[in-house]
Amino acid sequence: MSTIAPFARSEFDRRLDRARREMRRARLDALLVTAIPVFRYFTGYHPIIGESPTRPWFFILPLEAEPLAIIPAMGADDMRQASWLRNIVTWPSPRPDDEGVGLLAATLAALPARFGRVGAEIGPETRLAMPVADFDALRAATPGLDFVDGGAILRAVTAILSPAELARMRHAAASVDRAFRDLPDRFRHGVTEAELHRDFQAAILRNGADYVRYLAIGSGPGGYGSICRGPVDRAIDAGDVLALDSGSVVDGYFCDFDRNFAIGPPDDGVKRAYATLHRAVDAGIATARPGATAAAVWTAMAGVLDEAGAEAGSIGRMGHGLGMTLTAPPSIHSADQTVLAAGVALAIEPGLFYTARDGGRRLMVHEENIVLTESGNALITRRAPGEIRVIA
Amino acid sequence: MSTIAPFARSEFDRRLDRARREMRRARLDALLVTAIPVFRYFTGYHPIIGESPTRPWFFILPLEAEPLAIIPAMGADDMRQASWLRNIVTWPSPRPDDEGVGLLAATLAALPARFGRVGAEIGPETRLAMPVADFDALRAATPGLDFVDGGAILRAVTAILSPAELARMRHAAASVDRAFRDLPDRFRHGVTEAELHRDFQAAILRNGADYVRYLAIGSGPGGYGSICRGPVDRAIDAGDVLALDSGSVVDGYFCDFDRNFAIGPPDDGVKRAYATLHRAVDAGIATARPGATAAAVWTAMAGVLDEAGAEAGSIGRMGHGLGMTLTAPPSIHSADQTVLAAGVALAIEPGLFYTARDGGRRLMVHEENIVLTESGNALITRRAPGEIRVIA
Repeated sequence: MSTIAPFARSEFDRRLDRARREMRRARLDALLVTAIPVFRYFTGYHPIIGESPTRPWFFILPLEAEPLAIIPAMGADDMRQASWLRNIVTWPSPRPDDEGVGLLAATLAALPARFGRVGAEIGPETRLAMPVADFDALRAATPGLDFVDGGAILRAVTAILSPAELARMRHAAASVDRAFRDLPDRFRHGVTEAELHRDFQAAILRNGADYVRYLAIGSGPGGYGSICRGPVDRAIDAGDVLALDSGSVVDGYFCDFDRNFAIGPPDDGVKRAYATLHRAVDAGIATARPGATAAAVWTAMAGVLDEAGAEAGSIGRMGHGLGMTLTAPPSIHSADQTVLAAGVALAIEPGLFYTARDGGRRLMVHEENIVLTESGNALITRRAPGEIRVIA
Repeated sequence: MSTIAPFARSEFDRRLDRARREMRRARLDALLVTAIPVFRYFTGYHPIIGESPTRPWFFILPLEAEPLAIIPAMGADDMRQASWLRNIVTWPSPRPDDEGVGLLAATLAALPARFGRVGAEIGPETRLAMPVADFDALRAATPGLDFVDGGAILRAVTAILSPAELARMRHAAASVDRAFRDLPDRFRHGVTEAELHRDFQAAILRNGADYVRYLAIGSGPGGYGSICRGPVDRAIDAGDVLALDSGSVVDGYFCDFDRNFAIGPPDDGVKRAYATLHRAVDAGIATARPGATAAAVWTAMAGVLDEAGAEAGSIGRMGHGLGMTLTAPPSIHSADQTVLAAGVALAIEPGLFYTARDGGRRLMVHEENIVLTESGNALITRRAPGEIRVIA
């Protein structure tokens, strides 16, 4: 973190401006934010104690009044030092009878009400970071206000990454990439998935990430069966295919990509699966540009899999948005008609099933991160090699 | 993880039995679970991809029918391998029009309805892990059912730790303790908070934790100002007091404790603050036993601080429950009348402000983890030394 300059004040001004533009279009008097990453996005302050469910943290962006934060008193000193925001209201938490709800209701009710509508995190892919009972009480206490989904607006605003945000994602990706590069040197035959899982996290941290929030591992003879799970109790050895998939974070921004390794020479089935997925990623990347839909990126990758006679992998989509969360809308999916825009980061993630030498079914997944530019896109990750890396 | 035996099937049976006892008392026909740690608690399967907000994971415990999980299809193979639960229903996610809500509504509506009440995560300290709009739709689609808070029951059930659960917490605490023990050897003068923050995470992982979910750091000349924040851009050197506070995880169970270090000889103010807090922790531990209230533990510690003429620290409480989350009810707070029971784990966490040699105000916090036994309690952490550790 010390090597990255803090966000400039102008960056926050642009974020607020963009949000208000969207709010005007959606006829919202205010946005209510509870998700910690979005609270951080607007205020520049990261309440790490948000990991605890005891105390919610609220940010309110009015359309026509000063933004403010309503937070537990314990966080006020820290936040005043770290945030540009001066308008910070507190309550002495824990206070189970009223964890900020009274303040919230009074604040929202007193705002200029042009539309009578407040956007809150209630729609698809949101997780409201306050108890539902408190949110129900808030709605009941403000009968003049209609709470509608603000999640789509928040995603639209946060999806467009600035150069400074992108630098953080590149830093996160580079830390994981370096850990992948050194993996063959560190690998010991017979290491358990659990040992490797810990070792690889430590390597990512040593290489500069702030946190490892997600690390999936898959291994098995001739291939693995899943890449959405933590370690199981097995030793990794010759004949195995190994994959690691990490969501790591620098200053609040995620990368999310995987790499595959063969322990000893891979068989033809593994090589074929790898080559097909590598081409599928290429096709996805070639298609992802402003104006294209998420579905079009899916179709391009599905075409490569079809042509190879491969059965698409089981994870239900072939990629997703990312940024301040491990995944974000859109889904790279046949039914997702989201039109892509410059500045949006995507994980391109095709997967397929193939038949291993023992006749069993195995899964392989490739994943790269890209950001859309005006003319196409640019890699955030360093592209995986064209042939599977072999650990001797 | 490979060194810990998986939970026995009987452990899950006991969890279900205990939950149903509480449900009967609370007149609930079913419990609806969305929080990933609680989903894992009942099913034995940890959907690590729950880090992504795209797809919710549901567990339903009926009072008088078989428990079932309603999950994204992508997770079914993994879950069938890892869980004792056979009744797994899936939908092809992502499917934004209906992310499992239709299945949920149909399932809940078809259950034996003795009371017409379903417990869901809606009360204090809960975070519903599905979109509120979907929960509203579920409530609207099941007019015969009353959704009431199930959070208190879930906490009551999960709070009582079994020996197997406690072993995981001890393992987590030991991994952090070993990282603390070696810290003076690894410390380099002039290291930045960010560098130390990464190095310490890697050390915890090397020492056996599965994940570092939380790591706060505070440092400053003659003391720090906060212990609820991530690293800031400063170098740590002679004259500083340093604290690290980590919530680390083994097989889903947290420890949460801190340690303080003086870089070079501490001044009298630091020594006094340390000694007072050490006595306060002793007083808290001496008070925590089955039948005592959380408030009584607070009072015992507050008494020590008062007697020393110290101003209580700013974090608003002096400890909390823990287990499958970094913090859980109760709060060690004057207003929390929760009666403690054997098997409950607590973080004992007094803090105080003191005047540093430069005349400024500094914070110090001590923290230990204990578990209540029939006759009192036992330490989960290795008790901090009676005098602050000095890094030469």
